[in-house]
Amino acid sequence: MMVVMKESATLADVEAVIERVESAGASAHVSRGELVTVIGVIGDREHVGSIELEGAPGVDQLVPILKPYKLASAQLKEGARTVVEVDGRRIGGPHFTTIAGPCTVESREVMLETARTVRDAGAGLLRGGAYKPRTSPYSFQGLGEAGLRLLQEAKDETGLPIVTELMDVRDLDAVLEVADVIQLGARNMQNYTLLTELGRTGKPVLLKRGLSSTLDELLMSAEYILKEGNEQVLLCERGIRTFETGYRFTLDLMAVPVLKELSHLPVVVDPSHAAGKRDLVLPMSLAAAAAGADGVIVEIHPAPEEAICDGPQALRGEDFSDYMRRLEQAAALAGKELQPVA
Amino acid sequence: MMVVMKESATLADVEAVIERVESAGASAHVSRGELVTVIGVIGDREHVGSIELEGAPGVDQLVPILKPYKLASAQLKEGARTVVEVDGRRIGGPHFTTIAGPCTVESREVMLETARTVRDAGAGLLRGGAYKPRTSPYSFQGLGEAGLRLLQEAKDETGLPIVTELMDVRDLDAVLEVADVIQLGARNMQNYTLLTELGRTGKPVLLKRGLSSTLDELLMSAEYILKEGNEQVLLCERGIRTFETGYRFTLDLMAVPVLKELSHLPVVVDPSHAAGKRDLVLPMSLAAAAAGADGVIVEIHPAPEEAICDGPQALRGEDFSDYMRRLEQAAALAGKELQPVA
Amino acid sequence: MMVVMKESATLADVEAVIERVESAGASAHVSRGELVTVIGVIGDREHVGSIELEGAPGVDQLVPILKPYKLASAQLKEGARTVVEVDGRRIGGPHFTTIAGPCTVESREVMLETARTVRDAGAGLLRGGAYKPRTSPYSFQGLGEAGLRLLQEAKDETGLPIVTELMDVRDLDAVLEVADVIQLGARNMQNYTLLTELGRTGKPVLLKRGLSSTLDELLMSAEYILKEGNEQVLLCERGIRTFETGYRFTLDLMAVPVLKELSHLPVVVDPSHAAGKRDLVLPMSLAAAAAGADGVIVEIHPAPEEAICDGPQALRGEDFSDYMRRLEQAAALAGKELQPVA
Amino acid sequence: MMVVMKESATLADVEAVIERVESAGASAHVSRGELVTVIGVIGDREHVGSIELEGAPGVDQLVPILKPYKLASAQLKEGARTVVEVDGRRIGGPHFTTIAGPCTVESREVMLETARTVRDAGAGLLRGGAYKPRTSPYSFQGLGEAGLRLLQEAKDETGLPIVTELMDVRDLDAVLEVADVIQLGARNMQNYTLLTELGRTGKPVLLKRGLSSTLDELLMSAEYILKEGNEQVLLCERGIRTFETGYRFTLDLMAVPVLKELSHLPVVVDPSHAAGKRDLVLPMSLAAAAAGADGVIVEIHPAPEEAICDGPQALRGEDFSDYMRRLEQAAALAGKELQPVA
Repeated sequence: MMVVMKESATLADVEAVIERVESAGASAHVSRGELVTVIGVIGDREHVGSIELEGAPGVDQLVPILKPYKLASAQLKEGARTVVEVDGRRIGGPHFTTIAGPCTVESREVMLETARTVRDAGAGLLRGGAYKPRTSPYSFQGLGEAGLRLLQEAKDETGLPIVTELMDVRDLDAVLEVADVIQLGARNMQNYTLLTELGRTGKPVLLKRGLSSTLDELLMSAEYILKEGNEQVLLCERGIRTFETGYRFTLDLMAVPVLKELSHLPVVVDPSHAAGKRDLVLPMSLAAAAAGADGVIVEIHPAPEEAICDGPQALRGEDFSDYMRRLEQAAALAGKELQPVA
Repeated sequence: MMVVMKESATLADVEAVIERVESAGASAHVSRGELVTVIGVIGDREHVGSIELEGAPGVDQLVPILKPYKLASAQLKEGARTVVEVDGRRIGGPHFTTIAGPCTVESREVMLETARTVRDAGAGLLRGGAYKPRTSPYSFQGLGEAGLRLLQEAKDETGLPIVTELMDVRDLDAVLEVADVIQLGARNMQNYTLLTELGRTGKPVLLKRGLSSTLDELLMSAEYILKEGNEQVLLCERGIRTFETGYRFTLDLMAVPVLKELSHLPVVVDPSHAAGKRDLVLPMSLAAAAAGADGVIVEIHPAPEEAICDGPQALRGEDFSDYMRRLEQAAALAGKELQPVA
Repeated sequence: MMVVMKESATLADVEAVIERVESAGASAHVSRGELVTVIGVIGDREHVGSIELEGAPGVDQLVPILKPYKLASAQLKEGARTVVEVDGRRIGGPHFTTIAGPCTVESREVMLETARTVRDAGAGLLRGGAYKPRTSPYSFQGLGEAGLRLLQEAKDETGLPIVTELMDVRDLDAVLEVADVIQLGARNMQNYTLLTELGRTGKPVLLKRGLSSTLDELLMSAEYILKEGNEQVLLCERGIRTFETGYRFTLDLMAVPVLKELSHLPVVVDPSHAAGKRDLVLPMSLAAAAAGADGVIVEIHPAPEEAICDGPQALRGEDFSDYMRRLEQAAALAGKELQPVA
Repeated sequence: MMVVMKESATLADVEAVIERVESAGASAHVSRGELVTVIGVIGDREHVGSIELEGAPGVDQLVPILKPYKLASAQLKEGARTVVEVDGRRIGGPHFTTIAGPCTVESREVMLETARTVRDAGAGLLRGGAYKPRTSPYSFQGLGEAGLRLLQEAKDETGLPIVTELMDVRDLDAVLEVADVIQLGARNMQNYTLLTELGRTGKPVLLKRGLSSTLDELLMSAEYILKEGNEQVLLCERGIRTFETGYRFTLDLMAVPVLKELSHLPVVVDPSHAAGKRDLVLPMSLAAAAAGADGVIVEIHPAPEEAICDGPQALRGEDFSDYMRRLEQAAALAGKELQPVA
């Protein structure tokens, strides 16, 4: 950490800072410029982190040097990449993974038909929401446990591992029974209760970036999970909130290479929610793969016009195998391969 | 709702929309322009809301006419304003209320000293966090139940009602025992689990606007609480996330008059978290009061330099009664009075 | 346009609106809902546009139905796409074009060496700034006319058409002598003086999206140029301003397919300025091409470490032909071909 | 400036940086931490500014310590505040100034009636646009020189100094003849041509903050003017672009105290354009004054319903003297006085 003093700081202010730094077990290196003095604070993350200097007399700003996360950082693994393994499917490293399914589990028939389409096209995992976070209390909130049972049935029939969302810590056990990957939605990215509990389960977590979360904040949320001993975290870019009203969210694909530079964790992209329109899902999926994403999570539906939720952004089931084929080519551009299912 | 058809829509597309509207129990009024046909959908909120037309053939856009919330809307009370009463303190209407206290409950001594300062200066309620949402898992997470006990002690001594945050639904009973107003933090504004549970308690809720939430979304979150029968909701503007890096958040004071036009609920402002610096808290508090806020929630500390968290933004205890006096003048500008404590 | 009345609007308010609409030569279709009356205004763009109803008694909101631009809209050409031809190079349609060169023209040697690299790798056009918009008055502002002469020399030697920026209307003649495409920078996207003058020249214009401009605003700025009779406009996405501080700007690649749906004009992407870092330029270029962009504009430099400006984001000259080869593959994914130079 | 090296930086990388710093005439102070080395670069602004280290081998980030502006900084005047004097009216320091008038000059009658209202209510300056920046080429673009003549007439009759906007450098002489303060619009905040020319005139400039400009960028634009020898710059907050769609722009009132801490220049607020609605103008004006603004610039019109542009946000002429009286009270809260006109 660097402590930048104000131009008006006195010698006594500088000495007080040095004393505080040293009493915390760190050491201080002073650089006096013509106008401004800067004090480098040197020590390990814990000692440095415990020094409270913001707002101290004469202090202008504190400049962090070390990233605030440790377990999520690329340095931890010295360049090696985490590969999350889910029931034989490998996510990350040289692999490209497609997670597909309906936005919400709505009926047995739709769920099973979609699951078969997903399996037949060679996608890796099946998604579907039993618990749905909805802006309005008047919207359909998901089938709940009945939805979980339909997911189980789809898994039994197709062998596809299940990705589904957890919203309430009290549903954890029920979700754990069915889910192979637990999704944490964008609005829960800083739900520290859920983060900690998911860390304790050891189950892979798909962690969506919050609507206005920086990449550092996303990695800090991952750190909550990692800190509990769960190393299986998939980071997910799903669009951020900006001034643009032409689409629901602005998909931030630069996050893909940057997250991969900052962290060893796999990065997947959800192009469906940002686009909000079917026609945009294919180009943005190709772009995500070309940018180096480790996978995508997309919504498909056999008859999007009849979907209970988010139909307009769902790919049509009949187009899905063509979508997969083109995605494979884009992933190859970034040196990645769709994993053949054994 | 208005359904705007594409220029390329066929007559059959238009008829299909009309049929769908009518089969849902609503009625359709068609306006044919030179280029574009628009279909007005007329009926009550529930019937209109259940028609899924997004992405239907020939449909360009859907324009909602009614606001998506009902219980939170100003129309519900035909202009009358909700006044929330907390242990004899009235919040809203002609009253201006100050909620003050430390960011986090850190020790018995600091808590009691701050509580006395708050009471002596004539503020209405005492705030203090026992459970703290922190970006980093390595930061102090609050004293938890021990913190709640200190809040109870401060309440017993000073008679001040307590505002404190709930993060985990499993802590609800413990928090309910002490809190007079339960705070829902910005990062939990769309934690639908907590919103619903707080709706069921009937206890007043201070609902903070999310970092990138629109006012409509804030009101939809309030609707979750109101829908469970709890009418005691305080809306809180606390700064939104923008591109500006000169301060932590951008305090959106236009939200104050606009929320009061949209809703009957009281609106309070938290100037401390957006500013992140003590010197900005007074001018922004005065501005909030002048803009018509029903109150402010601020952080104070007897010795901010020693505070465990957010010291730089805490007002000094010794300056607090002067702060209150100036705030009273600003509230008077907007036709509001600080309520004398009986 | 739809005029949505307030719930509290009176019959007289509604009649006053109808009268105003009809007196402007348009016609009004009234839809009365249970709570709200909506008036559809039907007529051509000019008549409807001249009716000032915002803020009229009883009026809640005006909902535009037609896009505010006409010449830039996809409808104008009924799906056909504009191809801009620059000295034998075709931009748009089935073609993918690379524009490359140094950020700023800094010396004869660097300029000529870069131009040869660009030509040898098969890129289509040469970029280089003689006039540089700089945030700070203390930064290098470009070589001005001397820079233009170096661009002319590079063009004479390599045969590459030149893309260069105009900042001051008084430099128009000098720039017109050298430039084959005139660039209008993001900070000048709403400089209506320049837009109009460039419209009058008939020279192709590369129009960069403003830092916080919506796509509709970008197209309105294009409309300023088109309205003067100049149809040769290239739209350019170059990153927008968001809360994320991990990179300079957030590259909004969803703008690519959406602009192509809204408009017949070609869309190119500038990945260099948003990234601000060389390592991000390749993945974001591939992503842009995969998303369907008609081209990219990138910065390259023979020795980026010695560049006067923006060296860290410049591709190394030695890597450029490999970059071009991979970009070709990504463009092919979207059905586009790099145009062979005859 | 601090140079933060990467964890992977070699000793040779560090030495290369030191050599570069020293060869530029500055000196380097090295702090070696356990993981990271930081090099403090010490010297004057010009020497330090010319060292290009971004992207150099082993360099992670550069942290500027000094603000990039000098003439605009509060340090320049050691706490003294600039007071701009316009024809006997003082703006800044202990004074609070109101600038009022129609959005655009539309007719002789409206202009003169408005000018009398402004004068009678005791406002300080008269605003009115002869050249109007409009998003659409189809909108009214202002009366141009005819509008300037009407402003002159209003000035002759009322004695009020004139604030009017310059958009095109070729209109400078014509505008200079009439204007007492030249306004530079938000979309031209980084029009370096205009900034420099206005710096040369010596005439007071009202510089509006760009829609997505940081405060540092606003001050850098002021620096362009100051650098040419013109010290008479008024900074103007007018709302920034955010995700919120409930109003046109988000008025950032925290900018007021922060700009006054960073700079010696006066700060005025334009509440009309952000609000876009008359009812919001009064509360936001009071808030601006309470936050410590040196003045406001507002739109008024004798009959807003008939205004050619932006009628809904214009205060009614008949309400203006009441508005002025309440504004005076709010300014007093921040220790400021409306200046009596001699």
